[in-house]
Amino acid sequence: MTTEGFRVLDEKSLIDYIKAIPSLASKLGNQVDNLKVKEVGDGYLNFVYIVISPSSSIVIKQAVPYVRLIGESWPLTKERSYYEAIALKRQHGLSPKHVPEVYHFDRTMSVIGMQYIEPPHIILRKDLIAGVEYPLLAQHMAEFLANTLFYTSLLYLTTTQHKSAVVEFCGNVDLCRLTEQVVFSDPYKVSQYNRWTSPYLDSDAEAVRNDKVLKLEVAELKSKFCERTQALIHSDLHAGSVMVTHESTQVIDPEFAFYGPMGFDVGAFIGNLFLAYFAQDGHATQENERKAYKAWITDTIADTWNLFYKKFTSLWDIHKEGPGEAYLYEIYNDVWEDVKQKYMIDLFHDSLGFGAAKMIRRIVGVAHVEDFESITDPVKRADCERRALDFAKNLMKKRRSFNTITDVISTAL
Amino acid sequence: MTTEGFRVLDEKSLIDYIKAIPSLASKLGNQVDNLKVKEVGDGYLNFVYIVISPSSSIVIKQAVPYVRLIGESWPLTKERSYYEAIALKRQHGLSPKHVPEVYHFDRTMSVIGMQYIEPPHIILRKDLIAGVEYPLLAQHMAEFLANTLFYTSLLYLTTTQHKSAVVEFCGNVDLCRLTEQVVFSDPYKVSQYNRWTSPYLDSDAEAVRNDKVLKLEVAELKSKFCERTQALIHSDLHAGSVMVTHESTQVIDPEFAFYGPMGFDVGAFIGNLFLAYFAQDGHATQENERKAYKAWITDTIADTWNLFYKKFTSLWDIHKEGPGEAYLYEIYNDVWEDVKQKYMIDLFHDSLGFGAAKMIRRIVGVAHVEDFESITDPVKRADCERRALDFAKNLMKKRRSFNTITDVISTAL
Repeated sequence: MTTEGFRVLDEKSLIDYIKAIPSLASKLGNQVDNLKVKEVGDGYLNFVYIVISPSSSIVIKQAVPYVRLIGESWPLTKERSYYEAIALKRQHGLSPKHVPEVYHFDRTMSVIGMQYIEPPHIILRKDLIAGVEYPLLAQHMAEFLANTLFYTSLLYLTTTQHKSAVVEFCGNVDLCRLTEQVVFSDPYKVSQYNRWTSPYLDSDAEAVRNDKVLKLEVAELKSKFCERTQALIHSDLHAGSVMVTHESTQVIDPEFAFYGPMGFDVGAFIGNLFLAYFAQDGHATQENERKAYKAWITDTIADTWNLFYKKFTSLWDIHKEGPGEAYLYEIYNDVWEDVKQKYMIDLFHDSLGFGAAKMIRRIVGVAHVEDFESITDPVKRADCERRALDFAKNLMKKRRSFNTITDVISTAL
Repeated sequence: MTTEGFRVLDEKSLIDYIKAIPSLASKLGNQVDNLKVKEVGDGYLNFVYIVISPSSSIVIKQAVPYVRLIGESWPLTKERSYYEAIALKRQHGLSPKHVPEVYHFDRTMSVIGMQYIEPPHIILRKDLIAGVEYPLLAQHMAEFLANTLFYTSLLYLTTTQHKSAVVEFCGNVDLCRLTEQVVFSDPYKVSQYNRWTSPYLDSDAEAVRNDKVLKLEVAELKSKFCERTQALIHSDLHAGSVMVTHESTQVIDPEFAFYGPMGFDVGAFIGNLFLAYFAQDGHATQENERKAYKAWITDTIADTWNLFYKKFTSLWDIHKEGPGEAYLYEIYNDVWEDVKQKYMIDLFHDSLGFGAAKMIRRIVGVAHVEDFESITDPVKRADCERRALDFAKNLMKKRRSFNTITDVISTAL
């Protein structure tokens, strides 16, 4: 992909850009003479602007052909913006209440114009640290996961539709490769990018690299990530990709999207809730021991899986005689409940494995989570991280022995 | 794909066609004035001609946009010829001793010009019925399978190369769909296309349709066939796709090729040998009870798997620090033997499952094998088929309990 015609926008040139795009100007009520622009990206990969007109606001996101945080020395295709745009459109179509709308996409400029997710929406991770409960979070995430995964799988699509959708996203391989490296490889070997709370976790990090059983499991998960085209997955569904209010849940940033194993999304979200859970002791104070909040987190984990199970299998029931070709109802009608149960238990085990992998990499890999990073006392932080790490290692190794999410949670308490 | 510019060749127009293609004329020593043409297709899908000049011979294969046997009422994309050509080239490159060379490909005309596999090469199935032993068959097939599967998998390719190869073959979905239907679906439901040795196997066929455990297993195998892009597989590797002499083994007709599970190829070949095995009692005479030949078949089954295992893992050892990204040696060097063993046992179980599926469909599905069809006494034929069917059902259900091919064979004796 050439970079011809591409230029990095700044707050000034962005305004000129918007003025020239009728679909964007119109979303701003055509009041483009006094636009205000605010850069709000987390700074890791992309530039994200809120553009405010007297009557309304939109978001403009631009990808640059490198990792913004590091600079041009770490190139990363700006084509990720294309995959983010087509994934957003597809996911918004399937789960409109939980995915922002795309107004405009410019492939040359890697610019997406999209719906502004207005305050008081906040990044979920921030409030998992602050200890704020979101009673509808589990239900909304279960809906998002069920809708986006079911409708892009062979439970709903014909194999012709499925193979053509697989092709559409195979080009996003560079972003897949980043995941392969930082989730499935680097944490299990010596890598310049790895870091952990040293020296407290030195031997824990080394133990991960030397854990033969764990490594056999992560190898199997990596192969599944690379080879299994089960559904269109978000593929970066951590607590920083979810924005919440008490009434609303919005899933953003699907630039890693491709056809992969469903469990990678379900596991990412659940794994991140477990990370938040294990970080709570580091945020506890005498006034607030966070006991109730920990219980809310584990309830949310349980509800997410159980509601997902319910919603997903109910979509499957509704469409049991639909176009999906994996399980023709004509064949499986006399064994329907067993078919669903088997499919869901396999997906459960996948989710636990991938969730565990996502936890491990946040403790001994390159990218950490603010849940732990914000615990200033390194001894306390290391203690929280170690318990999360031990939980995750056990989860990955024993995942096939769990039948319910309650059993999983009981090993975390 | 348009059919513009396409015309079905006959023996006369074929000669004019060849004269106009320098690469074909040159393979015939440029002696194109007195070409002899012989149509030798099995008549099921395509036209296949041997073209003979005074100095040499070539094969010309033309796909027509329907199933030749049925006629234009059963359309089937002639684009299969394109996938056959690119698969032949790739497989010839990886296993040149066991795959014919492509001289010419014309996508508009769906014409492949390729190496003539000269007499006494014969279709393997014919001599499995006649009772002819081929001492090098197992070794050659093990080489073909190991070379074509290993080098197209993530054990050798980077994920970038792999995803781009996956895309290349996703377009062959119509042929995949044919397999999905006739192997994984039709035998398990009432279908106008199914047939069996009636009335003797009526209740056996019904039992397949009502076997809940079997259907759960075949559903899992079908999903794997549709979703798992493990390697470039031939995908139609039955005893009619292999030509043999005592010194040579040639694998032909990869028009079903795509990125799928390796076990589908290994299982197809082994499953077809088991079909031949169970048919022997139907071919036995007082003079020749076929006992020795049955022993040769089971030895060949055992050798195929064991030599494949050896060759495949030895390729993996050779390239352990190569470009393949599934198992980075830096991570797995301290657990290398375990990694290989786990991978191979999973592949073994896949192979047994797919092999069983391929056997079942040849007994109660649309397309049968000459091994059984040539047994004229229907009672005798049904008896052979029933034992093959019972073996295959058990194999599919119990496949994960087998650790060695010898254990599998012992359940067939």
